[in-house]
Formats: sequence, structure tokens, C-alpha cells
Amino acid sequence: MSQERTQAYAAKAAGAGADRQTRESGSRPALISKVFSAEKLLLVRMMESLGNPPLDLVLWDGQEIASLGKPALARVLIRDRGALLKLIANPELGFGEMYTAERIEVQGNLVDCLETIYRALPRTEQGRIGQKLLAPFNASLRNTLPRARRNIHHHYDIGNDFYRLWLDRDMVYTCAYFPDPAMGLEQAQAAKLDYVCRKLRLAPGETVIETGCGWGALALHMARHYGATVKAYNISKEQIAYARERARAEGLDAQVQFIEDDYRNADGEFDAFVSVGMLEHVGVDQYQILGALIDRCLKHTGRGLIHSIGRDHPSPITPWIERNIFPGACPPSLSQMMQIFEPFGFSVLDVENLRLHYAKTLEHWLARYEANAERVAQMFDPGFARAWRLYLPGSLPAFRSGDMQLFQVSFTRSGQNRIPWTRQYLYSS
Amino acid sequence: MSQERTQAYAAKAAGAGADRQTRESGSRPALISKVFSAEKLLLVRMMESLGNPPLDLVLWDGQEIASLGKPALARVLIRDRGALLKLIANPELGFGEMYTAERIEVQGNLVDCLETIYRALPRTEQGRIGQKLLAPFNASLRNTLPRARRNIHHHYDIGNDFYRLWLDRDMVYTCAYFPDPAMGLEQAQAAKLDYVCRKLRLAPGETVIETGCGWGALALHMARHYGATVKAYNISKEQIAYARERARAEGLDAQVQFIEDDYRNADGEFDAFVSVGMLEHVGVDQYQILGALIDRCLKHTGRGLIHSIGRDHPSPITPWIERNIFPGACPPSLSQMMQIFEPFGFSVLDVENLRLHYAKTLEHWLARYEANAERVAQMFDPGFARAWRLYLPGSLPAFRSGDMQLFQVSFTRSGQNRIPWTRQYLYSS
Repeated sequence: MSQERTQAYAAKAAGAGADRQTRESGSRPALISKVFSAEKLLLVRMMESLGNPPLDLVLWDGQEIASLGKPALARVLIRDRGALLKLIANPELGFGEMYTAERIEVQGNLVDCLETIYRALPRTEQGRIGQKLLAPFNASLRNTLPRARRNIHHHYDIGNDFYRLWLDRDMVYTCAYFPDPAMGLEQAQAAKLDYVCRKLRLAPGETVIETGCGWGALALHMARHYGATVKAYNISKEQIAYARERARAEGLDAQVQFIEDDYRNADGEFDAFVSVGMLEHVGVDQYQILGALIDRCLKHTGRGLIHSIGRDHPSPITPWIERNIFPGACPPSLSQMMQIFEPFGFSVLDVENLRLHYAKTLEHWLARYEANAERVAQMFDPGFARAWRLYLPGSLPAFRSGDMQLFQVSFTRSGQNRIPWTRQYLYSS
Repeated sequence: MSQERTQAYAAKAAGAGADRQTRESGSRPALISKVFSAEKLLLVRMMESLGNPPLDLVLWDGQEIASLGKPALARVLIRDRGALLKLIANPELGFGEMYTAERIEVQGNLVDCLETIYRALPRTEQGRIGQKLLAPFNASLRNTLPRARRNIHHHYDIGNDFYRLWLDRDMVYTCAYFPDPAMGLEQAQAAKLDYVCRKLRLAPGETVIETGCGWGALALHMARHYGATVKAYNISKEQIAYARERARAEGLDAQVQFIEDDYRNADGEFDAFVSVGMLEHVGVDQYQILGALIDRCLKHTGRGLIHSIGRDHPSPITPWIERNIFPGACPPSLSQMMQIFEPFGFSVLDVENLRLHYAKTLEHWLARYEANAERVAQMFDPGFARAWRLYLPGSLPAFRSGDMQLFQVSFTRSGQNRIPWTRQYLYSS
């Protein structure tokens, strides 16, 4: 960063209109030390390290650090010196914590503002020094069976009523597939379930193992529309209870077995293996165990599909999300995902990146969430409501900016020649 | 391997019909030591390690080791004790060498016979102990600029007339794309060139860098049908001369520049990066250099595609092929390919495995090659002709059995949102 830009910031920070003349005349402000404390200078440095996103920062004492160059997308109000210190010390954790505690406020477009910040972050593994330092710590938090259960309970057992407020009617809490971007959420989630089934080339009477089945929408879709018999695993108590109830109500409980157990305890032999939105929670150190499970469970002619949030390069998630929203989560890069397939002689047929479909999905969730904000406020304490009002708007720019990806990986056993000749069949109506 | 099966082999080897009764009666043959020398026992062990492929082996002294169980697909004649020793000592190298020297003959269906052997080989990295031992040796053979030039000269500068005998009229020496498997080779190669252009979403007037351009078919296709301006690199002298002549003849020499130079010396900034069939020759240790080159050359909105032979897991190629056909070659697994993209902030959008299309391509090449076998015999010495009559029929089962894959990887810079919404457009007529 240039000395001039720090001075320009300092000049802007020095006072509302008083500095304007100074800037425009091009001369340097002389009184930085008087109006600019150490922590404020660090704040300026932090903004620089974030690529100077177009934000106006307003401090508790009314001082303002105005956006450099581009017009501001939002105003960030920092309510006290402690909040500022937490933000400076660890922006990725501190922002979320202080926002949740209402000690930082955002006025304006939070989504666009976060997208700008995501885009400014270094894109290569080498660039993320802080994350590299965190990596050994994250790796030590293995998703053992009890830890996995606690982690999943933390996120998925906060009440089906809560999720019903803003998910589609089938309760699908993963990226939808929009053949047409103007499609509604209900239709796009149904299209996703069907797209997965067609990628798996499910035939009537076939058997499927699903690991991480959420509220059961995919398992029920496979049974209902493809005549499949499904064994579906999940360690979320509330989700399994809900899914079983749906299967009973639809008369599909003979065809779909919902099992409240860890995927690592699965057994049997199946025509297809599918996992949609579980891998993010597995942890890279468990991929060999997952690969061995698929190897154990998949017939010689079996097909598999894993759908997961991912990254362009190996990188842990934002510590605030890891701590508050998704404990134990780690979306993998493709090279990391290959640790599931390569050691066990699986052959990857197709990888599709549906990143922008997740951004679109999040737009729908966010709109529904905001429409139900008052209901959420009645159901939960303010900290929870605030955390989710940061997490959902924060996830949207993560996908828009390319910080997060969505991979669908289709595979078979190596050397299996009963595979589609081309992908044309996926796109014929 | 079971003791019984060794004895069963030995029994079968002991004599034409004399042993049949012994086998059927279930009693053990008593005279193994008299009729079975150490090297013949090792041959039996080798056959076991190959999964007992359905082959009859005939030794120089007339002794026969008959196929165990399944009817034989071919008879392998081993002409002398030296050839047997070379085969036993290192089957993957020795078979090719002794076949080329006419000291091993194959009567029957060589392709099916080799497919059976490929399928029996261990599929996981751990299984290939010999290859693991070879790996450090292979890695030390870096494709430095002079070595790359020698390696490419070895394979591609053996005469355009030779390749013209059995390639399509556009001289495309990479996997074709058959929207319909019944399509002819000329049509399927044109379909492949077009498929690559559509995956790259080329627009008129755009600039493309192509590394490893062969005889220029793709570069000319992009100029002719998409109005692109292409800079195409290749270190094969004969291929570049041929490609330049074609560009002149078509009046495309202002639009397509064929450069006889190593891809590592490329410069400029382009709308698209494409490489079809070069990566196999690059060597995994050079992937970071390739990634850095793409990073240097691709515009912010640029699209890229790499088309390469690959593997389901990291594994060097058969030593005979490496020594005799493709020095320096190493088809990567997907995790290895990601070493090009992940460190440089590229985002993989799409991976398609076209393995069976390469098998189909090889069927066409093989049929044309066989139809021109006499012309080849007139042009080259017998050793060369024999080596190629092993290499082409040997490559076909490598793809059929899943020993080799064909990956097309499409990518952009991370966070680039000018990407296709779905893949539907690739499949609309």
C-alpha cells in the first residue's frame, strides 16, 4: 500500500467537509497524529488489505473514514472502541461477532458490500497467510462420531419450524438447479432432485444409499419418481423424525428407510451412492474413510454422485461461520475431493460447477427469510436472529464472488463401460 | 494365489492331453519338477499376477501352458528362453520389446487379450508397487526445454506421410468426439474441434493462445468458423511446417500464427487458452509453470480448456510406451491436473471424461493403420512397424478397460460471472 493512500484516508477521516478542500487541492494534511489514533490507522490498513472496499466507516465518536474513490455501497457503524479492536485483531471473526452483538451495524447493501470484500481477498492458497496459520488448528478438530453429532445438532436441530419459514415446501437445504434462472425456488429444487437422479441414471427397482439426507426430499423423490429403494443416513434427530413422518404420510415407508446414524456405520450393497450437501461437514481427513465406505457399498455397475460446496483452492471457511454457524465444516477444492475417488479406483465421469445456481438459491432464501424476520425474532433470541441475518446475506456474495463453488461430481468404478455415451440425455426434454 | 491353481497350471502345462485325466480325476500331478523349470514356474506366477488372462502360452520347445478356466482369446508364442526371461523380469517392458523383436508372437485377438490384462491390473496407486518404485526415476526425467524438443521430435517428426496414412484428413491426432457412435472419423474429429470451440464460447475477433497445436487443425478451425485470431505453439518442426502450409493455402496465415517454440516461451494476452493433447507430454513437475503461463496469458474474462489423456489415479505410463513411443509422457489424474489451476486462482467449471470416445477413435485409427500395413512396411524398418502394431492395438484396450481416461477441463478465472448458466447450449442443435 502506498503512503499517499494512507494519507488520503487519513485526510478523509480528518473531518466531514473540512478535508474536502485539502484533498481537492492535492496538498497533504498536517494533523494526522492529532486526529488519528493507532487503532484508527490500523483500521485504515485493514481496509487496504481488503482492497479498499467502497464503504464509509463511522466511528462511535462520529468520525468518518469515507470510501476511497468509488461511491460507498454501505455505511458501517462501529459502536465502540472494543468492537473496533476486535475487528482489527481478526476481521474475519471479529466482524461477525460484533455484528451479532449489535456493536457493528451496516446501513445499506450488505450483500454487495460483502461481495466487494470477498472479491478483494487473495484468491490463492499462498495469499491467505492467516488461514494457513489456522489450518493446523482446524485439522486437529477431527469430525469424530460424537463431534460430528454435536456439530450437526448445532445447525440442523434448531427447529424444523425455523427452516420451514424460508426453505421450499420440500425442505431442501442445498443448492437448487435453475434450468431457467427465472424459475421459482420450489420448481428449481424439484429440478435439482431430478437432475441428480438423471445423472445417477436410476432405474426402477434399483437400490440407493444416501448419506446426509436432510429432511428426506431426495430419498422420497427417488422412491416416488424412479421406483428406487433407498437407505438414507443422517445424524440430525429432528430431520430424521421429519423425514420418517413424510415417508409414512406418502406411503413410501416400505421403500425408503431413514436411519439416524453416522454414514461411517452404513452397510449393504447398492446400485447407486448419493450424497447432497454432506461433504462440506465431513472434513478432508475423513475422505479416505468415505471413499472406503463407497467402495464397500457400491455394486460393480454402481453409479455415484457427490454434490458439495467447494473451493477453487484448498482453504478453510471463515472462522466466524465455522464457530457460529457450521462447526466442523470444510468445503473442499477439487484436488481435495479426489482423495475420495483416486485411492479406491473410482473413475470421475463428470464434474459440474453450479456456483451461480447457489447464488440464485440464496437470493430466494434470503428474500423469504427477510419476509419472515419478525417470526424469527419471536422464535429466537436477538443474537441468533442477527447471526442468521449475517450468515445468509454473507453466503450470497461468497458464491457471487467465487469465494465458494458448488461441485456435482459423477463417478463409477474404474473401467465401467455402462456409462452414458454423451451428456446429451441430460438436456433433452 | 492358491497352491492348487499353480498345480493346475503345472498340470495343464505338463502335456497336451496326458494331463487331462489327471485333472479330471482330481489327483495331483507328481512330476512337476521334471517338466517344469524355474522360469516356467515364474511364468505361471506372472500369469497369476495378471489375473490369469485367457491366453494359451506356447514355449519354444512346444510346451504349452493353457488358459485356466475361460477359453483362450489368443495364443502367445514365446520364441526363446531369453524372451521368456525378459518377459518374466519386467512384463510391462519385456512384452513390448520382445514383441517388437519378433521373439514373441500373438495369434488371435490382441486387443481383447490386452484388455483382459489391463482389467486385471491393480487399479489403485497402492497396488502398483513396481510403478511406485519407478516413480522417482520418472520424476527425475524432467521435460526441460531441450528434452521436451527431443521427446516430441521422437514421436511427431517421423513423417507427416506416415500419419496421413491412418489419421483423418484434417490430421487430428487426439481423441475425437462422436455425438453418434456410428459417425465416421472425419465427422467426429470435426465435431470435437467444434465442441472445444463451443466449450470456450469463442466469439468473432477474439484472440486465442493454443499450446501444442499438432498439425494445426484446431487453430485453423477456430479461425475459419469462429473468426478467431490464433497464436499456436508447437515444438515439432514437421507439424509446424505442415500447419503453416495449410494456413497459407487457405489464406488464413494472417489470422493464425504457427510458432515453432516451447509453450513456456509464450507471451501476450488472450481471450482464450486451449491445449488439446499436449498435457500428456508436459510432466506433472511442470504444471505450476503451465499454470503460471495461463495466468500470464489469460484476460480477466478469459476462458480456458485443457484436453488430455488422464488416469483415475496418479500412475506413470507403461515403461515400454514411455521408452519406445512417448518419451517423457505422463497422463495425469484429476488431482494432479488441479495443480495447474488451484495455485493460480482458476475456477474449474466443467470436467468431462470422454474415455469411450478415445476407444472409438482408436478403433478407426487401427482399422486404417491395418489397411495400410503394407505401405508402413515399405516406409519403415520392421521393428518400427511392429512397435506401432503393438502401440495402437495396445492403446485401444487401455481406454476400453479404464486404464486410461480422457479429460476435458473447462475453466475461467475465479469469480468470473460471465459463464454459461447451464450446459444446455452445448447440446442444442
